[in-house]
Formats: sequence, structure tokens, C-alpha cells
Amino acid sequence: MINVGVLGATGAVGQRFVQLLANHPWFNLTTLMASERSAGRSYADVVNWRLDVPFPESVGDIEVSAATPASCRDLDLVFSAIPADLATDLESAIAQSGVGVCTNASSHRMDSDVPLVIPEVNPDHLAMIDLQHDHGTDGFIVTNPNCSTIMFTMALAPLRSFTFSDLRVATMQAISGGGFQGVAAMSIYDNVVPYIGSEEEKMESETLKIMGTFDGAEVVPAPFKVSASCHRVPVIDGHTMAVWADIDAPVEAVKQAYRDYIPPISGLPTQPEKSVLLHEQQDRPQPRLDRNRGNGMTVSVGRIREGLRFIALGHNTIRGAAGASVLNAELIATKKYL
Amino acid sequence: MINVGVLGATGAVGQRFVQLLANHPWFNLTTLMASERSAGRSYADVVNWRLDVPFPESVGDIEVSAATPASCRDLDLVFSAIPADLATDLESAIAQSGVGVCTNASSHRMDSDVPLVIPEVNPDHLAMIDLQHDHGTDGFIVTNPNCSTIMFTMALAPLRSFTFSDLRVATMQAISGGGFQGVAAMSIYDNVVPYIGSEEEKMESETLKIMGTFDGAEVVPAPFKVSASCHRVPVIDGHTMAVWADIDAPVEAVKQAYRDYIPPISGLPTQPEKSVLLHEQQDRPQPRLDRNRGNGMTVSVGRIREGLRFIALGHNTIRGAAGASVLNAELIATKKYL
Amino acid sequence: MINVGVLGATGAVGQRFVQLLANHPWFNLTTLMASERSAGRSYADVVNWRLDVPFPESVGDIEVSAATPASCRDLDLVFSAIPADLATDLESAIAQSGVGVCTNASSHRMDSDVPLVIPEVNPDHLAMIDLQHDHGTDGFIVTNPNCSTIMFTMALAPLRSFTFSDLRVATMQAISGGGFQGVAAMSIYDNVVPYIGSEEEKMESETLKIMGTFDGAEVVPAPFKVSASCHRVPVIDGHTMAVWADIDAPVEAVKQAYRDYIPPISGLPTQPEKSVLLHEQQDRPQPRLDRNRGNGMTVSVGRIREGLRFIALGHNTIRGAAGASVLNAELIATKKYL
Amino acid sequence: MINVGVLGATGAVGQRFVQLLANHPWFNLTTLMASERSAGRSYADVVNWRLDVPFPESVGDIEVSAATPASCRDLDLVFSAIPADLATDLESAIAQSGVGVCTNASSHRMDSDVPLVIPEVNPDHLAMIDLQHDHGTDGFIVTNPNCSTIMFTMALAPLRSFTFSDLRVATMQAISGGGFQGVAAMSIYDNVVPYIGSEEEKMESETLKIMGTFDGAEVVPAPFKVSASCHRVPVIDGHTMAVWADIDAPVEAVKQAYRDYIPPISGLPTQPEKSVLLHEQQDRPQPRLDRNRGNGMTVSVGRIREGLRFIALGHNTIRGAAGASVLNAELIATKKYL
Repeated sequence: MINVGVLGATGAVGQRFVQLLANHPWFNLTTLMASERSAGRSYADVVNWRLDVPFPESVGDIEVSAATPASCRDLDLVFSAIPADLATDLESAIAQSGVGVCTNASSHRMDSDVPLVIPEVNPDHLAMIDLQHDHGTDGFIVTNPNCSTIMFTMALAPLRSFTFSDLRVATMQAISGGGFQGVAAMSIYDNVVPYIGSEEEKMESETLKIMGTFDGAEVVPAPFKVSASCHRVPVIDGHTMAVWADIDAPVEAVKQAYRDYIPPISGLPTQPEKSVLLHEQQDRPQPRLDRNRGNGMTVSVGRIREGLRFIALGHNTIRGAAGASVLNAELIATKKYL
Repeated sequence: MINVGVLGATGAVGQRFVQLLANHPWFNLTTLMASERSAGRSYADVVNWRLDVPFPESVGDIEVSAATPASCRDLDLVFSAIPADLATDLESAIAQSGVGVCTNASSHRMDSDVPLVIPEVNPDHLAMIDLQHDHGTDGFIVTNPNCSTIMFTMALAPLRSFTFSDLRVATMQAISGGGFQGVAAMSIYDNVVPYIGSEEEKMESETLKIMGTFDGAEVVPAPFKVSASCHRVPVIDGHTMAVWADIDAPVEAVKQAYRDYIPPISGLPTQPEKSVLLHEQQDRPQPRLDRNRGNGMTVSVGRIREGLRFIALGHNTIRGAAGASVLNAELIATKKYL
Repeated sequence: MINVGVLGATGAVGQRFVQLLANHPWFNLTTLMASERSAGRSYADVVNWRLDVPFPESVGDIEVSAATPASCRDLDLVFSAIPADLATDLESAIAQSGVGVCTNASSHRMDSDVPLVIPEVNPDHLAMIDLQHDHGTDGFIVTNPNCSTIMFTMALAPLRSFTFSDLRVATMQAISGGGFQGVAAMSIYDNVVPYIGSEEEKMESETLKIMGTFDGAEVVPAPFKVSASCHRVPVIDGHTMAVWADIDAPVEAVKQAYRDYIPPISGLPTQPEKSVLLHEQQDRPQPRLDRNRGNGMTVSVGRIREGLRFIALGHNTIRGAAGASVLNAELIATKKYL
Repeated sequence: MINVGVLGATGAVGQRFVQLLANHPWFNLTTLMASERSAGRSYADVVNWRLDVPFPESVGDIEVSAATPASCRDLDLVFSAIPADLATDLESAIAQSGVGVCTNASSHRMDSDVPLVIPEVNPDHLAMIDLQHDHGTDGFIVTNPNCSTIMFTMALAPLRSFTFSDLRVATMQAISGGGFQGVAAMSIYDNVVPYIGSEEEKMESETLKIMGTFDGAEVVPAPFKVSASCHRVPVIDGHTMAVWADIDAPVEAVKQAYRDYIPPISGLPTQPEKSVLLHEQQDRPQPRLDRNRGNGMTVSVGRIREGLRFIALGHNTIRGAAGASVLNAELIATKKYL
């Protein structure tokens, strides 16, 4: 068993990490880190569990520790769900101290020696860990993309045999993306907020790195352009997006590419039976009905139309955050980086 | 005063017609038509008033009549809010009988001698009424576009001095667009439905007719392409849309075009102070906060960004339906077609 | 294995039945009945699966049959999720033909020889089946109460050692209680509807029968009074209710009664670990966070205050409908009525 | 004209004050006070206007001042929308300095020399201002009740000729009651929160003071008991409540009392045509459809049933907050206390 901990264990993504790790077959969750004022108390005592799955009693007695490299001393791997402004230095310090970090924070995603990985899309980028070792870091940092970027690139992965140079994507994102307290009810109920800070920039840059080519020294960005328009809608969980890709192929050929898709990974515990699921019903996928497919790890696509237009959807705090990091960690575990 | 009536006066759009016409300075609302089983009873008795504005008591005593040409005998003009399948024949029959019809139904929108009009966009198309007269119709039919198409084309109108050939639009549409009973709560709450029957086709075809050129004999469609992706979101009123236009101009020039825009109409009672309002705040427009601007007749635009991308928004059952027909009727009244 | 079928298998409650029965350890789901026009096609083909749990593929190939006694020929037991107006005669006919019926419909609930049962509350009422046999029926009908009544009486069951004569309950009920199509989004979004047809009457009469005494010949109603006020709120699943009971006991004694409560049943597959769960947090239970406890079969209570006031909550289409019938059937199976 | 200001002018209730005062016939809004960091900038610049009515441009240029007694120097009256913890001392200081304070804050509501007034219910309590003058205060403080208490007591006012000793009320309160930021979307969407801090205590104590008797020296509390259960539901504006009163009178007599009700005030600008409106439709009142009656100042009642049970409803930030204070101020103005 690999000993793991969670940084920022009481927040929305932190609770998802705990949900996914509490009974993990490979990972032994021993350490839960949160703010200073929570340190020293039991997790059950400190956390205001707000997920719609039951609280995993098995971890309730863990004594919460402060979010410091010292707390990670006995760990092989740390999952990070802390805000970007805290993550920049703390994640580096933990990696320096010899521990691996799988993080959902955006701080290091675009660093030239840090892999930005989706196991189904660019598992080979994990080799960038070697760059970090070359640079003198004992541990490592591996990042997963922004939630919307994950659904978007996974929906594109099966289409790589087609050519595209120009992509547009309009998102309809869930309120859980802002954390438990991030979105006020008065601002989103009966409303659409057509702006999410930095979201469009993340989708436009991260996609090119993920779908780029790692040549052993650096990532050559993918040679296409992404233009995003990001919007918050009154949905609890599940990001939906409308995509336009200038693919010059019949709709049926695109559908077949989805049906035939086999991801480049297998045997990882958190991996769903179908990484990308094609819906044939004309009004699907829908977030409330499809976000939990594959335990929240399946990305759904549908409404493949001339244009080429389609809809993509996934669970933003599972596939798009905690689950993404856990799947990365599982891939790392098979590569013997731990 | 011009004597007017409403066809389908008890539905969602019908009630909006009644709201707008109850105290209209030019129009005298005398006739309310609904289904056979309502005929003969008072409107107050028959209607289940479900708007969030007070019921206009002044029309409560009107005796509801059946939806037939005979009921329109003493009218100058009829506003139609009936379903397309009923509208096809009934609207034609009323026009044949010498009465003008301003309709929100889609049946006749693409007919070659029927104007599809937004006063701010193509007031000159009203002259197509003459074609109907030439074809032997005593009255006339004038249509307004689909709700989403109205916001979309009005947002494009101030940009006509720029060139564009390729437009994409992703809509986030309100539930009132489906009528009072059309959208089940179980299907839209905590959800997005990425499909609205025929909506994309309407936006793609109607836009080209509205923005096309009427040469006295026919409308030459506008020479660009529209690709739409239409989605229902949990919002009561107000359609929001993300638009991409391949306009090659600085963002500031586009903003200035919006600021400088003067619509080609003036003095119509239902016309708002600003037909198209530019928002400078980065997270606006928003349906709950901006749908009621200009009494629901103003179209809001915002987030003008490189790309060229922007957001457009308007009230779907006022600007996008009943208000659109009423404004058309006011324009017709100034042209002496009545 | 006991062969079972579902009447009305495509609706909201019918789908819940299928979810609960698809992999049941005691029941073998062989027959799915729906309207004439669905008969002859596969269930997968006919059903528009709208639950947020995956479609149980194992039953997808079952050929749907018409809702008739003939379709039940080879069954031991039928679960009924059809509307009351259809249920009255059809359920009687099926019971006459020798098949047991466990029904969620209200038609026969107050019949003098039909048990209205919640296994945790009045399992002994099942003996009323003998009355039906005495009356010449080969099969039987067993009913479960209205959804709100179930949460209400289960919350009262642990308090039976206290005296109460006067109960008031104000409900806040979920939209799924109206079926997939029963509640229009325009009527409930950003709204409360303070009326649900017949709901108050059901709570007021059914509670007295369930908590009454079966003396072998008839049920003597419980000797207290219930006054209900029922309201629909914008929640997908989960009925919440505020209860006042004139119990003259310290709050702590009432809490202890909940903690000490042991239901009179055990070993039934659908029975949750805790039938009634006491929450100590001051703002719980809440429908989104607590409706799925015990796989939707646990009733939550909380906010026990002087007055005596408390909150009760349960999943209306599981504990309050399909799960209630399945649990009744499991109890029946242990009594050798099958 | 009476010169007035608003304390806490940028919050949810503060913006409602500005909306109601911007074009008031008796009051001249000259001063807008907010936090230190807003002071010195224009109101238009500082406020994030979030109401669904247009921003009143006429007050946009007012320079925001700090919330201090000095800023109130030239005012006759101050409206207060600041939190209770700030209000305690600041409101007293302003009153000491000779200015009248009409406040929505709870700090001074139960003070023995401070009137807690609803003009329709207990206008005579205003005379308690004399007690404050006797105690050496040059100005005065007049409070309005908690939002839920206002709807509740106004619904009871027309029933005073009946006897009641025991009242129960279950509320379904809107999210705007928590301010713009007070309720997180993740906590209320698809949910009910059966707890609002101090709300039940306020309803239970304030009602007795308001409906009590002022004998010239003190208020003798009303001789009945109130038991409240308070809940937050996903509604933007409008508190709905189910009430039980042990009134021993026929339903029709109670309805007639509502129809015959004439409030003890008249001619106040903010007073609605009907203070309490009886609905006869079986499913009304409803918050989305009825909260804006009388410009948000009318309290709706309906579903009068045996029990005696009924529903009451009103707009919580207008009738239940800012509008309540403004109406109090108008009553004060007619009494020559200014």
C-alpha cells in the first residue's frame, strides 16, 4: 500500500478526494491536512461533510494536521486541493522534500517541467517527472487540468485521427466548481453568469499543452487554436459544453470514432468502464442524468451534428478534479515513480 | 384607436400580449380568443394568470370568443399566439377576410410573400405586405422571428458595417420559452437540456431572411452562414447566448459601434429607450438582472472580446415574442397599412 | 425465488421499482407492464430512463406486456405504480386471479380489509390479508401509505411510549412526487405551491389507520388528531416536514427514544441499517444531503425542540413509494403469504 | 421635504432602501453611508446593483460617506440596513445626536423604550418615542420587526376580533433574506435548510410586543403563545408561511374578516392599496406570482381552512425590511416627530 494524504481536506474538492481515497485498493489514506485552526482535531469533528454520499466513517478519527511539508514526512504521495495562491510554494516545498504531489491546483500546470496529464489523453507526458528530478527535486509535482479542459480534451481524444485547427467551446458550468462557498445563491439562482475568472484562458492554454507532443525535453503545443466562452448555470454538479470543431468528416465517421475509441490505459482502479461514452438520444447528455456515469469518471458526448458540432459533459468535481488527480496517481503508481 | 384582438389569449405568450395591450395608447383591445371550451366566459374567469405582473383588471370582463375568422370581424388587427399547427390555416383565413395578423407563430415566417420583421433590423421588409395584396389577400400576415433569433439578429444589427461570413451561436434558453406547461420541472431542474426541437434550424434560416435584402419582389438571403447550438437552462425568463463572429476589427471598434448605434425607427410606444444596450461590467449581462431592461424590450450585449466573441441577452416572451409582434404592429400603424 | 412484475413500469415510481428489483436477492423480476402502445417492445426500447442511477441493463430485454390480469398469470406478486383511477379495478382483478399485489396507489388504502402497512410501524396489520381470503379473494392487496404519511408516521413510531393527542405537520414536498411530467417548471421554479391535491386529507386519515390497532376484525383508528398543511417546494427528491406534537416530555427524553429505537422487523433486504436516524447538527436533516441515507430507505429526524417540534425527512420515491412496497413484499415473504 | 440618508446603502436591504427612496414624494435622499473603503467615491461607482429593477440614476452621483453620526449631521432621518452587531452602538449614537433612526436591524427591537412598529398593526406604539425623549435622547430609534414576523402579524391583524391563545407557524423563507452573499448556492439549491439562526426566537418574541398593548409607560405583551419552525427554501424573494391559530370560528367568518379589514392608516405614499389581500384560488398565494403585489407591500393570505389553518406571504426585502422602515418613517412624518 502507498501512503497518501490530502491537502485541503475539508473543502469541496478535498471532500471528493476523501470519498475516493477512503477505501482505495492501492492507497492508504493516513493524513488529512487543513488550516491551522483545524489541526489537532479529528476529521469527523472538523469537516462539515456536504457531499450527497455518506461520510466515510473509516477516516473520521484521523487527526487533522497542518498543511506543511512536515506533515507529509511519512507519505509517498500527497493530493492537493488547496487554492492556487497557497499551492505555488507549498507544493514545491513538499516536492523538494521528496514527496510526490498530485494536484488539482492551477499553480504549476504550465511550468515547463511539470506534466499536465489526463491518463486517457497524454499518459506519456508523465515522463516530465524526470525533468524535475534532473532539476534536483527529490519528489515531483503532477498536475491535472482545469475541470472544463478535462471534459473538452477527453471529448477530443477519440477524434485525433481527424484534422482540426480551429475549436470553439461554450461551457455551461456547475456551481460546485466554485467550491462550497464560492457562488452565492443570489447570484446564480434563476440566472446565468456569463463569466468565470481565468476559465477561458485556462481552457485555451491548457488544452494545447495536454494535446501537445512531449519530445523528451519539452512539450510542443498542439497546433490548433481554442476559443472559449465560459458561463455558470444553475446546476449543482456537471459541466456541459457545446463544441465546434472544423473537422471535415461525415457525422457517422465521427460517431464511429467515438464508438471505436480505446483509451491508452487499462487496469487503473478509478478508471471507468467507458472513458468517453457516446449518447445517441437526441437530448442527451444532460448533467443531472449523466454526470454520475462511471462513478463520475465517464465523459459523455452526444448530438454529433454537421458543423461539426457536439455536446460534451462530465462531473466537474470527480472527473474534473479529485478523480483526475487520483487517476493520475494510479498511473504514476504503475510507472514505478513511487 | 385601432381595434385589436389576441388569438390564444390564455397561454404564456398570450398573457404577455394582454399585458402589453391592456393600456396601449394606439390599440384598443376588444377581443380575446381562446379554445372552444373557454368561449362565452369572461377572460378573468377563464385565464389562470401566471405572470409576475398584476392582472390587468380592465380586460377581465371581456367575453372570450372562439378562435375563428368570424370573431375577428370587427378588428383591424389580430395578434396571434397560437401553436404553429393551428396557425397555418387560421392565420391565412383571417388575413383573407381582410384583417391584419401580427403573429408569433412560426408557420408563415419563411413564406416568400410574408415579411419576417424586426423593426430595428429590417423595417423595409414590411413592404412585402404589398405582395400579399397583389396575391389577392385583403388583409395581411406579418411575422416576427423565433425568440432566440430576435436577440441574435438585434445584437448583430449594430455590426452591419463590419464584414462577417461565419457566425456561431450557443444559446442558454429560459423555460418560459416552452410555455406554461411545456417544460417539466423534473426535466430541467438542476439540469441542462442540450436540445430544443427545431430551434437551431430556425436560427440558421430566419436570420438570413431577416438580414437579407428585399428587392421589391423577393428577399435575397444574407450571404453568411449561421451555426447554432441550442440549450435549455434553469432560468425562468431571458435567453442568453454566446456568439462568435469572424469580424476582423478591434474590440474597441466593435464596442463603439454598439455605443453609436441608432435604430432606424423612432416614436413607437413599445420601443425601448435603448434597443441594444452595451454592458461594460465583465460579468454582465445576466438574465435575472437584465431581462427587464426597457420593459423587457432592450437587448443587452456584453463581454465583447477578441475572437470576436460576445454575449447577447433579451427577454424571450416580451422582446422575443409578444413585444416583438406589438412593435411590428406599431410600425405597421405608422405605415398606413391599417 | 419469487416471480414478480411491475405495473406501470415506465413512470417515475415504476422506474424506482425496476431499480430496486433488478438485482433483488429474493425476487425475480420477470414481467414489466405498461400501456397498450408499449406492449410487445423491449423495456429498454420503451422506457425513457430518467433516474440518476444507471439503467439496469439486465432487465432491458424484457418484453413489455399490457397491464392486465392475464399478464400476471405466472407471477407470485405484482408491484403497482399505476394511477389511482386505473388501480381500483385492475388491482382487484389481479388479486381475484390469485396473485398478490403490493401497491403504491391510493385506491384501496382505506378499504376495511386491506392492510395499510409500514413494516417498522404496523407489521401486524398484514394479518388483514386473511380478511381478504375470508372474503373470497385468492390473492391479496397490500398497500403502503402516501409518501408524506410514511415519513410522518415513521418519525412518530419511536415516540409511541409518549402520549399525544394533537399533531400538526407542515410539509415541504419534492417535485418528483408529481411524477416525471406532473409539475411544470414554470409553476415551481423560484416558487412554493401551497397546495397539493388530496395530500392533507391522506395524511390526516392514513396516519390514524396505520397507527391504529388491528383487533383481528377491523382497525380501530389511533385516538389522536392530525392537521396537515402541504406545500410543494423546488427540490427534486426528498420530502421535509415540520412537526408539532403535544408531547409532555423533556427534549432529551425524546432524543433518547430516537436513539434507543429498534424497529419490529429485521433481516429484510431493503431494510436500512437505521430506519429512523436522529441528527444532532442544528441545521439537519436536509433533503439534498440526507435523502439518500440507507439507500433512500432511512427516515431522518432532527431539530428536536421544546414544543414539541421536530423535522422529519425521507426520500419520497424510494422510502415513500417504491421502496415502501418492496419492503412490504419482503415482510409478506417472511410470513408465508406467498 | 425631509432630508434622509441610508446606513449600509450597498447591501441587499440597503439597495431596496435606495430603490424606495430615490423618487420619494416626502423624503429627499441626500446621504448614502457605507464602509470606510467606499467613502469618498460615487454611489454608482461603489455599488454592485443587483436588484431586478433598474438602478436609479438620480442617486448615482451621491458621494458615499462613512457610517458615522457626523455623516448624519444634516439629516432629519436615517434608514438603517446595517448588521445588528454594528447597529447597537451606532444607531444609539445617531439618535443621541438628534437624528431619527428607522431601522431594520434587530439590535433595539426589544428595548423597553423603543417602538417595534408595523403601521397597519400598532401605530399607537410610536408614542414610545416620547419615552426616549424623556430618557434624554434628542433623536429617536424606531424599529420594524423581523421579515417573517411582519407577514405573520399582518396576517393576524384582521383577525383580532377573534380569540386565539396558541399560534404555530412554519415558514418557507427566501434566500434574499440572507443578503446578497449570505446563502451559498451549494447549500440551498435542490434543498431545504430547516434552520435560520435566531429566526424562531424573533418571531416568538417580537409578535407579542407588536400585538401587545402600550399603556403609556410600557408594552404589555400580547397574551398568546407563538411556536415557530423556520426553514429556508430555494426561492429568490418572498416568505411563505403556514399558520395554525386556535380560532373557533367558521372559515367563512374568517374570510369575511379579511375582506372587511381596513387598516388604521391611510394616505401614506408607500402604503399599498390592499395591506392584506385574501386569495380565493386554492393554490395561492405563491411567492413568485404574489410577492410583488402592491409594489411588494401587500401581504397575501389564502387557503383559509378549518383548523384554523391558512397561508401568508409577503416580499421579505420590501414589505419585510426596507419598505417596512419607509412606511414607519412616513407614519412618523404625519405625527410631527420630525
